[in-house]
Amino acid sequence: MISRHIEKALGNSSAIREVCEYSAKLAKEIGDENVFDFSLGNPATKPPKAFDETITAVLQTTDSMKLHGYTDSEGMEEVREAIAKNLSERFGVAFEKQHICVTVGAGGALNVVLRTLLDIDDEVIIFAPYFGEYNHYIDNFYGKAVVVQPDLETFEPDMEDFEKKITERTKAVIVNSPNNPSGVVYKEGTLKAIAEILYKKQSQYGHDIYWISDEPYRELLYDGAVHHCPCKYYDNTFLGYSFSKSLSLPGERIGYVAVSPNMADVAHVALGVKNANRILGFVNAPSLMQLTVAKCLEEETDIEYYNTNRKILYEGLTKLGFTCVKPEGAFYLFLKSPIEDDVKFCKEAMKYHLMMVNGTSFECPGYVRLAYCISTDKVKRSLEQFAKLAKEFDL
Amino acid sequence: MISRHIEKALGNSSAIREVCEYSAKLAKEIGDENVFDFSLGNPATKPPKAFDETITAVLQTTDSMKLHGYTDSEGMEEVREAIAKNLSERFGVAFEKQHICVTVGAGGALNVVLRTLLDIDDEVIIFAPYFGEYNHYIDNFYGKAVVVQPDLETFEPDMEDFEKKITERTKAVIVNSPNNPSGVVYKEGTLKAIAEILYKKQSQYGHDIYWISDEPYRELLYDGAVHHCPCKYYDNTFLGYSFSKSLSLPGERIGYVAVSPNMADVAHVALGVKNANRILGFVNAPSLMQLTVAKCLEEETDIEYYNTNRKILYEGLTKLGFTCVKPEGAFYLFLKSPIEDDVKFCKEAMKYHLMMVNGTSFECPGYVRLAYCISTDKVKRSLEQFAKLAKEFDL
Repeated sequence: MISRHIEKALGNSSAIREVCEYSAKLAKEIGDENVFDFSLGNPATKPPKAFDETITAVLQTTDSMKLHGYTDSEGMEEVREAIAKNLSERFGVAFEKQHICVTVGAGGALNVVLRTLLDIDDEVIIFAPYFGEYNHYIDNFYGKAVVVQPDLETFEPDMEDFEKKITERTKAVIVNSPNNPSGVVYKEGTLKAIAEILYKKQSQYGHDIYWISDEPYRELLYDGAVHHCPCKYYDNTFLGYSFSKSLSLPGERIGYVAVSPNMADVAHVALGVKNANRILGFVNAPSLMQLTVAKCLEEETDIEYYNTNRKILYEGLTKLGFTCVKPEGAFYLFLKSPIEDDVKFCKEAMKYHLMMVNGTSFECPGYVRLAYCISTDKVKRSLEQFAKLAKEFDL
Repeated sequence: MISRHIEKALGNSSAIREVCEYSAKLAKEIGDENVFDFSLGNPATKPPKAFDETITAVLQTTDSMKLHGYTDSEGMEEVREAIAKNLSERFGVAFEKQHICVTVGAGGALNVVLRTLLDIDDEVIIFAPYFGEYNHYIDNFYGKAVVVQPDLETFEPDMEDFEKKITERTKAVIVNSPNNPSGVVYKEGTLKAIAEILYKKQSQYGHDIYWISDEPYRELLYDGAVHHCPCKYYDNTFLGYSFSKSLSLPGERIGYVAVSPNMADVAHVALGVKNANRILGFVNAPSLMQLTVAKCLEEETDIEYYNTNRKILYEGLTKLGFTCVKPEGAFYLFLKSPIEDDVKFCKEAMKYHLMMVNGTSFECPGYVRLAYCISTDKVKRSLEQFAKLAKEFDL
């Protein structure tokens, strides 16, 4: 007798789970080296060496009561200071420690922001294609997800559709660039257009509408693509960040919420965020990781590793006749399914030991997601299998 | 424009915050050694030496991609196996790995269980006096807290009141023993009586009612008190545990939910718990800590440290004429306020640099909580101040 909410979640989350379970089973049968599993967004690079050295040093030099003790629910003061300074220097926005709340990853950050904002039936706009967990996060607090369709040429949001979908009940929009699953990095013009529409609608409805920027892939950029901080274009903005991808620490659950210093009533909202972080049961972000990442804010993952995979895969697949928008960020590639039924296409690909996730689970049927955060050797060898798949579909 | 839920939380959480802020301010003025801060439940003992050695060994010997990578949302298989084995050996209940979900502390565990169970307006029974965060946890998902009064002699729940408060909408009861704030350890007879009433009401209403055992203080026992596992008396039981107190790791946020193997539909409920852990944004419990605590399940904190404080404080205060039930667990002592107005009494105590939390914030007016997890020296020196306080109130 579990809640209707969780029953619904169980029903919806089977698509990716099915792929993973099949992939694991197949690996046992034919050997892991023969399964080309593009289904999971798990970093393929080790944490930077500086991270390993820092965590050891922190353990050796910090008093263990302080190191493992409760921190303020918004995080340690020195950690928030370091993050605020780093953000300000990078993006030219005047963040200070009181605008930062260290969180249990970006998943924690998004839930904390949504819990801070949402009353029952408040609407949250999300741009398809999107990370399927957004539905659950909004559902957790009985909000309503409202989906805006993409421009299928660029995989940026359809601005006309966006403007139409904003109603009196719209509380926030979640913007995810670099995007999971498309790998697209939104152009500055797109961000400005989003801001313009939001300002117009705020004024029309006479209340705040918030921009929630989900940006765990902020540093994973290729071909000279640039990540623009949305705080420069819009005041009512939250940044949700995670060190999962930039430092390859997804299991450690460490990230933060940054509240734009220009937000209306910023002190009160930041207090709300801090309280939401505590009462959702996160209490505080893991303390050892707080201290460690604060000393690694300038460290980078091995971007070239992902870039190599991206180029091999994009060039290989388009040469075979597949179509996709060229990804400039994250470690995903969003392929057009050669048949309308993307679920069926994924099943066919499994025959060739190619594991992908159907676009339907990202609210974008007709496409499939490939996570190329796997070994370069496998990416190379997968092309032979994709060639067989292309042949089956007469490409 | 934050949510009504968080506005309400901000209004309610000011009592403890006020004490802490005043205490910090006063420490700056008169020196930390002159402030007797009994307000916070932060462990006063270092993590066991074995923990320090284990975390270093885990860092040195585990591949860093595995160590810091995503784990299954319910936790690593080997960690869940170790926890299940440990629980089974200690309490004689046949836990297996599939019954365990590793969580972000007990705060995470309780939120995960409540998210798994609650639909809007479902009722959750809590026994006064109780940890004030329960109200927020239940509110997070729009459940309703229903408070059962204590027997003021024993500080165990009033069983008649308990039976009366169970309705058609009752989904669960939260039981916290050893208790925060009273330090009382519920007797086996009490647990059996709770089980009997719950079985009767389940049968009367024809649906499951769950026992949620919040037991982070399970190992902090004195004077031969015993913690009994509620799974022995009642089948529809969840255990919520944290290593915060037993290993002095409150900042690291590591604990677990254990679903009783005898629960109706246990596999489905455990799947719900795993999914709730993921979609609430915890994703998985911090991975390095998962591996480390799994190797420290038999380690203990320095119980004698707390026991010494407990004895000095209990004997000293009762000798001065104060009244309180003798605590046998946790690190709290629940003092009867010599005047009806416990809030006023706490304010008077502040004059003598004694910081305590009013019982009103634990839904038990007329009492105050002392957390004796501070240095023994301070406990001793505080008695002089309490003597002045006693004099002011003609004890």
